[in-house]
Amino acid sequence: MVMLAEKLRKIYEDSHADALYIECDFLRRYLTGFYSTDGYVILDEKGCKFVADPRYYEAAEERLAGTPVEVVAGAYPQAMDLIAGKRTLGIPYPFTDAAAYERLRKSFELVDCMPVLRDAMLYKSETELSLIADACDIAEEAFLSLLPEIKEGMTESETAALLEYKMRQHGASGTSFDTICAFGAHGSVPHYETGNAKLKFGDPILIDFGCKREGYCSDITRTFLFGDDRQHEEFKKTYGIVLAAHDLVREGLTAGMTGREGDAIARDHLKKFGLDKYFTHSLGHGIGLQIHEYPTLSPRSEQVIGNGMVFSDEPGVYIAGKLGIRIEDSMYMKDGKTHSFMHKTQKNLLVL
Amino acid sequence: MVMLAEKLRKIYEDSHADALYIECDFLRRYLTGFYSTDGYVILDEKGCKFVADPRYYEAAEERLAGTPVEVVAGAYPQAMDLIAGKRTLGIPYPFTDAAAYERLRKSFELVDCMPVLRDAMLYKSETELSLIADACDIAEEAFLSLLPEIKEGMTESETAALLEYKMRQHGASGTSFDTICAFGAHGSVPHYETGNAKLKFGDPILIDFGCKREGYCSDITRTFLFGDDRQHEEFKKTYGIVLAAHDLVREGLTAGMTGREGDAIARDHLKKFGLDKYFTHSLGHGIGLQIHEYPTLSPRSEQVIGNGMVFSDEPGVYIAGKLGIRIEDSMYMKDGKTHSFMHKTQKNLLVL
Repeated sequence: MVMLAEKLRKIYEDSHADALYIECDFLRRYLTGFYSTDGYVILDEKGCKFVADPRYYEAAEERLAGTPVEVVAGAYPQAMDLIAGKRTLGIPYPFTDAAAYERLRKSFELVDCMPVLRDAMLYKSETELSLIADACDIAEEAFLSLLPEIKEGMTESETAALLEYKMRQHGASGTSFDTICAFGAHGSVPHYETGNAKLKFGDPILIDFGCKREGYCSDITRTFLFGDDRQHEEFKKTYGIVLAAHDLVREGLTAGMTGREGDAIARDHLKKFGLDKYFTHSLGHGIGLQIHEYPTLSPRSEQVIGNGMVFSDEPGVYIAGKLGIRIEDSMYMKDGKTHSFMHKTQKNLLVL
Repeated sequence: MVMLAEKLRKIYEDSHADALYIECDFLRRYLTGFYSTDGYVILDEKGCKFVADPRYYEAAEERLAGTPVEVVAGAYPQAMDLIAGKRTLGIPYPFTDAAAYERLRKSFELVDCMPVLRDAMLYKSETELSLIADACDIAEEAFLSLLPEIKEGMTESETAALLEYKMRQHGASGTSFDTICAFGAHGSVPHYETGNAKLKFGDPILIDFGCKREGYCSDITRTFLFGDDRQHEEFKKTYGIVLAAHDLVREGLTAGMTGREGDAIARDHLKKFGLDKYFTHSLGHGIGLQIHEYPTLSPRSEQVIGNGMVFSDEPGVYIAGKLGIRIEDSMYMKDGKTHSFMHKTQKNLLVL
């Protein structure tokens, strides 16, 4: 628990505020390690306090005993008491609404503590890594159990709903984002909104999905064929190139490289085949309590990738109205090397 | 469509701002009638503009043709161009983050337009009522198809996941809130968090659930018995009293009464049996694009209930560690009277 105390101390010091005041769910979870739908976290020179109402007080006391987080019974008034008299207050601007901002700035000089929190959240603890690993495991297990139930005539929406249900059955608390399920040429829209297209023999299927385990997210994409109608020579060739781009990142991205350099591993490989112009998004994004966090792996990211970071490796090729292929694993950097959290589902082209 | 033009005009005039600027999903949906995950709505003296990027532009153009909403191709810079030079800008404070607030207040005098939007959203159009009716129908159909699949040994969490999956299968885009499924005495916690308790013969089951249809919510609670172990005399008696309280509201709440008077119909009935002290929450809340909106039906609400309003009627009795009963329908006020959206599921005590 020394680590948590150090982490909290560093966040406090880096924020340059007299206190941090946090209302937002996932940040409360991050700072205390305890999930609740309500409550307040105050971090000041004396340490970290979690203000919990009767619904959570007892469970929080039990769970946080022996940690640097002190549980205080109460609600909003008690939280206000704890910050009364402070001069500068750090609040996370992107997760504070304008009404709260206006209220608080009457009593405090406000500063945005989100940059400091974002920096801290870049580096995952062993506990965090293990929760993300669980979320990845659940997603893969659900996908494997979905495959035999995919039938001709099913809609994209039905398929997504079934996969989400299976993730819940395997222990997820919910999805980490709206499942993208695209049949046929719909896969060529990178952020396709799952619709009511029906599955036909020979259709490519692209599913981008993930779930949450105690707040932590997984993110995975698989593209495969529903039967082989022998019309997919270009698809198969392109698939192999995208898969190689994906694998090259895992093999070649090492600690100390920048997000730009990571992105370039995949982009340069696609370029050899004239496909880089169809890779219309970034290679990857950080994953944690939020589905999109830092680091960013993109042509413009100068962020240095270090041990303990978690990110997606998701090269794709999208030829409008024709084909869309994306292959994505959630990855982590450890001992200087990139490792995948995914061990159960195949990435060689699957033909159902 | 005259109605939408008038509604928009009134919102604009009541806001006392030179323009309203909306980034938030459900408010964009409300003002335009068009759902998108991205985009900007600007409402000024010239009318209503929806700034849509290439993902939505074509669909928005088609859907909004002939309405008072003009679709403009673009993204954030185009939205900023449209409000450039305005003096006062109305933004919804509860749905604007502090970073956006700080950015905008450099160029504008900001006012909170949420109170005006809330007032407008109180009164549902026929289209809105019909979408809420659909969301209610889906929830009831899913519940009916869940009942034969409830088995001894299932967990609360499994039951909730199965019900949510069935709502998706019946056409919901998702849930309107986290399903509450409480077995046995867990029902005595009004906002119970669904857990892993296993269903036993004779257990009461309380399920509070709802789904979304094109953004509009349904909300329903059913309490019933999983088999009759003949240990439930008090439960059955109490159930009848709660049901009478629920029915009395539907029969007695008329347009022109206040939220307080509506609440009192149920509370006074429970009081006759000494049960009002166990009714520890409000009778109801408004339902629309948000699961909790206005009007409020509570002991302190002086809000007048009028035609076109939608709200829950959910009396409950919670005796800690012993029993919890809540019976809830989504309701609407029409022609001066209260009507339920629910027609398919029974409210007389169900024993599986």
